[in-house]
Amino acid sequence: MEISKDHPRYRSLMTREKLSELSKEGILAPTGLIAHGRGEAFDYLLGERTVPAANEAAKVAAAHLLEARRPIITVNGNAAGLCAKGLISLANAIPARLEVNIFHRTPGRIERLCNYLEELGGRDILGREQDALLKGIESDRARCSSEGIGSADVVLIPLEDGDRASALAAAGKVVLAIDLNPLSRTAIAADVAVVDEITRAVPNIERHVYDLKGQPQDRRFLIDSFSNENNLSLIKRTMCKSLFQKS
Amino acid sequence: MEISKDHPRYRSLMTREKLSELSKEGILAPTGLIAHGRGEAFDYLLGERTVPAANEAAKVAAAHLLEARRPIITVNGNAAGLCAKGLISLANAIPARLEVNIFHRTPGRIERLCNYLEELGGRDILGREQDALLKGIESDRARCSSEGIGSADVVLIPLEDGDRASALAAAGKVVLAIDLNPLSRTAIAADVAVVDEITRAVPNIERHVYDLKGQPQDRRFLIDSFSNENNLSLIKRTMCKSLFQKS
Repeated sequence: MEISKDHPRYRSLMTREKLSELSKEGILAPTGLIAHGRGEAFDYLLGERTVPAANEAAKVAAAHLLEARRPIITVNGNAAGLCAKGLISLANAIPARLEVNIFHRTPGRIERLCNYLEELGGRDILGREQDALLKGIESDRARCSSEGIGSADVVLIPLEDGDRASALAAAGKVVLAIDLNPLSRTAIAADVAVVDEITRAVPNIERHVYDLKGQPQDRRFLIDSFSNENNLSLIKRTMCKSLFQKS
Repeated sequence: MEISKDHPRYRSLMTREKLSELSKEGILAPTGLIAHGRGEAFDYLLGERTVPAANEAAKVAAAHLLEARRPIITVNGNAAGLCAKGLISLANAIPARLEVNIFHRTPGRIERLCNYLEELGGRDILGREQDALLKGIESDRARCSSEGIGSADVVLIPLEDGDRASALAAAGKVVLAIDLNPLSRTAIAADVAVVDEITRAVPNIERHVYDLKGQPQDRRFLIDSFSNENNLSLIKRTMCKSLFQKS
């Protein structure tokens, strides 16, 4: 369908069309489209921009990724659909490995997602083989790769659900989330929740990765002085303001 | 897929599964799933309940529907998917006619939606024939039925987009919206925006329709004393509070 460029929500509507295409190709689950819509609403309350608190969280996430012994970035259908190239580029910058891990798991979808990432230049993608289990989850979302999430010390989970975020935290891993809902269990369970839209957050984290590469002391300072709870409060205050300023 | 009943978002997840089924059947457009997600986020900020301001708006909407000479209720894929029976019941209570009107318009989808409503007991459904045009819209969303929206004086538009809401208002019709986003152009363009989840809002409006049936003076008073702008401010204040109370 044609969307007029003057439409106030042009960019958002174009992303919607792209994701609905990807759902037809089986990259995205239909419920992934609904989850995307939830994010859209919170992004609207952020003014569809990276707010200062989100930039600070992105910087701390970059510090954790560089301090990690075994950093892993998980990729689900929505993350791949919205930001596959950005995630591959971030993984190369750290370096970290990518593990495909989806909510509505079928061998076909896993294979399609791995191929999708490989076609875009992704290397050593994990997820086809899931030979480890995360404790504390009932569904088959507990399954993961022993080479990847299973043995990772730091995990970046873009657009992840609350069950897995909590299980990863309970497993003693440092959990870095990208999630637009500051009230979500994922954002609260995370050590660092980057409350920003994924296509803005991922390149921003990568930028900070390059800035912090030679700066181990800065990284420790950023990590030690960060409070996820305080950061989420700042985000919520921003959203409240925009509820009234937008009208 | 199995969803555990203990999941904190069980009801929301079940609705997601239902809507994704309906999208596979072609009742919902994929982008309709995204739009639903946006609503979910705002409903979350309402505490997934009918707040007092929304109940007041529902009462005023009921008054308008009873005062109308030619009331019409428009039905799109999301409205049908979530609340077909409720909308049919409300239409009978007023009485008003239902007109199917969708964003992603194909003859097949229109027919499927009309059949869907008729299978659930809907009568005299309008929308198969669209022989009138609304001014001020470029897309084929301008098309409507001369018997329905074309000649209606009061139009209830559940989950409608901003372009049509504005065009209906510009055409001099009394616009009653059901929309969870208090910042949306639809909510702002409407004479009365009921900021509530459709499956709560529609039966609530019907309840008020029965309460106000014999009360013309009460209806006039409710209509004359209502300010949509003030009502939306109350809603926004509620959402702000919940941003901080939920954490």
